[in-house]
Amino acid sequence: MDTQVVIIGSGPAGLLLSRLLHLNGIANVVLEHRSQDYVLGRIRAGVLEMGAVDLLHEAKVSERMHIEGLIHEGIEISFEGRRHRIDFADLTGGKSVMIYGQTELTRDLMDALAEDGVPPRYEAEVVAIRDIDGPRPTITYRQNGEEHDITGAFVAGCDGFHGVSRASVADKVETFERVYPFGWLGVLSETPPVSDELIYANHARGFALCSMRSKQVSRTYVQCPLTNNVEDWPDDRFWDELRKRLDREAAEAMVTGPSIEKSIAPLRSFVAEPMRFGRLFLAGDAAHIVPPTGAKGLNLAASDIRFLFRALLEHFVEGSDAGLNAYSQNCLSRIWKAERFSWWMTTLLHLFPDDGPFGRKLQLAELDYLTQSRAASTALAENYVGLPFD
Amino acid sequence: MDTQVVIIGSGPAGLLLSRLLHLNGIANVVLEHRSQDYVLGRIRAGVLEMGAVDLLHEAKVSERMHIEGLIHEGIEISFEGRRHRIDFADLTGGKSVMIYGQTELTRDLMDALAEDGVPPRYEAEVVAIRDIDGPRPTITYRQNGEEHDITGAFVAGCDGFHGVSRASVADKVETFERVYPFGWLGVLSETPPVSDELIYANHARGFALCSMRSKQVSRTYVQCPLTNNVEDWPDDRFWDELRKRLDREAAEAMVTGPSIEKSIAPLRSFVAEPMRFGRLFLAGDAAHIVPPTGAKGLNLAASDIRFLFRALLEHFVEGSDAGLNAYSQNCLSRIWKAERFSWWMTTLLHLFPDDGPFGRKLQLAELDYLTQSRAASTALAENYVGLPFD
Repeated sequence: MDTQVVIIGSGPAGLLLSRLLHLNGIANVVLEHRSQDYVLGRIRAGVLEMGAVDLLHEAKVSERMHIEGLIHEGIEISFEGRRHRIDFADLTGGKSVMIYGQTELTRDLMDALAEDGVPPRYEAEVVAIRDIDGPRPTITYRQNGEEHDITGAFVAGCDGFHGVSRASVADKVETFERVYPFGWLGVLSETPPVSDELIYANHARGFALCSMRSKQVSRTYVQCPLTNNVEDWPDDRFWDELRKRLDREAAEAMVTGPSIEKSIAPLRSFVAEPMRFGRLFLAGDAAHIVPPTGAKGLNLAASDIRFLFRALLEHFVEGSDAGLNAYSQNCLSRIWKAERFSWWMTTLLHLFPDDGPFGRKLQLAELDYLTQSRAASTALAENYVGLPFD
Repeated sequence: MDTQVVIIGSGPAGLLLSRLLHLNGIANVVLEHRSQDYVLGRIRAGVLEMGAVDLLHEAKVSERMHIEGLIHEGIEISFEGRRHRIDFADLTGGKSVMIYGQTELTRDLMDALAEDGVPPRYEAEVVAIRDIDGPRPTITYRQNGEEHDITGAFVAGCDGFHGVSRASVADKVETFERVYPFGWLGVLSETPPVSDELIYANHARGFALCSMRSKQVSRTYVQCPLTNNVEDWPDDRFWDELRKRLDREAAEAMVTGPSIEKSIAPLRSFVAEPMRFGRLFLAGDAAHIVPPTGAKGLNLAASDIRFLFRALLEHFVEGSDAGLNAYSQNCLSRIWKAERFSWWMTTLLHLFPDDGPFGRKLQLAELDYLTQSRAASTALAENYVGLPFD
């Protein structure tokens, strides 16, 4: 079989690219190792930059998001028993972010592709990526026990950190990595959020984040040791610990309830360079991971896809490879700034036991400065709402 | 003997406090362990915030500084072969810094005090600080082989990191510290500076700084291992190494010449809390050390003295102890922000071999962001020119 673009992976990056290409008449096939239900079951990010929202609008999948999503014009930072608001709208000239779960976004994209009769091929495991340096790379995948070949002009590797795409070029990739000595214990619950906006809490007991998926569904996190298991954290213990890490007003406003989902995720910073290998282009988590502090993961995936989609359009419509040739550099410039921001927010807000009392004092000094200085608040705000694309 | 304020140490902090108190009719005595020549021989900082300049004006010792000092409205940051200017005047609404060597400032203060007939007592070693919790603390010092007692209402400990003042309350002090795994090799030379403004260079070989004392005298630094000795660095090697760490234009503009002074200094962050113990008040390096990146050491000493002088005036003139009671807190709030800034500039600009390739990439991403974002540039600028006093 033959197509124009083979997309490996049906997370938000792969689905979004597929949808944008279809709408522009560029044939493509999405190959997904897992089942559709498995993909929809992953609970992930929920904060979208307006650049990502614009791209979803361009992909004609923003209708439900604009109805159900929540616009946030700021976040709150809690430390030393007080809370301070970072006012995005004021600091960035009216910018804001959209709260809309990755699961919902994935569903919207799946529905749109299914409706057009071009759904991803699920449970299709890629077993070989060949000839990426020639004119027609070939992908071999296994589905229902049979192997199939598919040939395209380009391959988009959107199959995440553990996917086959980056692994297939492992000998040509330079990687940069930092792991953090703690994880996030996350709880999804059908309880109203503590506050209308996200609360990021720095506390001597560790970081906490009060986030949400909607006005009825909370997504809440506490920093925990990597050695912990979810069994160590019955719901009561989780809520008690969260309460201790919030300011009094937030602690009193907290509504608790049974967890719908509970998981522990490690925190990692990771970048692979370059992101293009002949006709194979890596995008999203396949090329980079950020710690979740600052909510950049999904947004970086969207901005990779924006660069890749524009570049493919340029190739197929205008016959120019300028965008493809600049892809890696354009993406990485933005990725490294987001890596820096995510690392900085992580470092500012978490407890790092090895940093000792001096490190803790530095954090509090930085929080003091950040909340007193318009320049420093603006730097946080402009990163959070998303830096420009160029 | 009896006075109102006993000042231990004749560095800029002690001399400035003495001068300000004298001008306001408050009797004081400065005790200095070393000789006058020794004190004047110390080569130190050379960048003054306008808050410090204002205080020197108040102390009526700013005449020569205003003639010989250089006003700088920006600094340059060099990385990846290019140079970027941080324009203080534009970013902070017209603020600037004054380039004037600590040695010159010290001389001006010594001259003013000598002229008024109230010079410091040199080679006067303090051997005991007693009764700081009573109404009349007593200082015992040894001069010319004889011991003397001097009693005052208050004691100002301005005798630096290794002084007796903080040591005398060691059991009551909480300290916070970080040491850095490198030093600064500094060279003073009668050569014109590379540029009209300071150049801070981030380079894969290590940090470099092109600073100056005047339009004819350069003060230049390169990051070096702590295991190095000045003997390892003949002048030629120093200039060669500096040249390699600068952008091409700066390297070509460099004028070399014999070193007048050459030394290696370790970098340290240190804070002692609190800064008041009964009637003993610590100020300047006696209470805190910053790494020299960002030039905050002398400026923090000046702002401590500003708080202490105002508080003593309030006590002796208005009979209020509000300023004395708030001294420690007022100072420490400002000190911690300067500690954070100095740590941040140090971390951004130096080579930290243990941080690995990821750390190096983060630095370059931060430099990219810093030089592209007005908010981030403003945050640097407002710290460099000096944060407000309250």
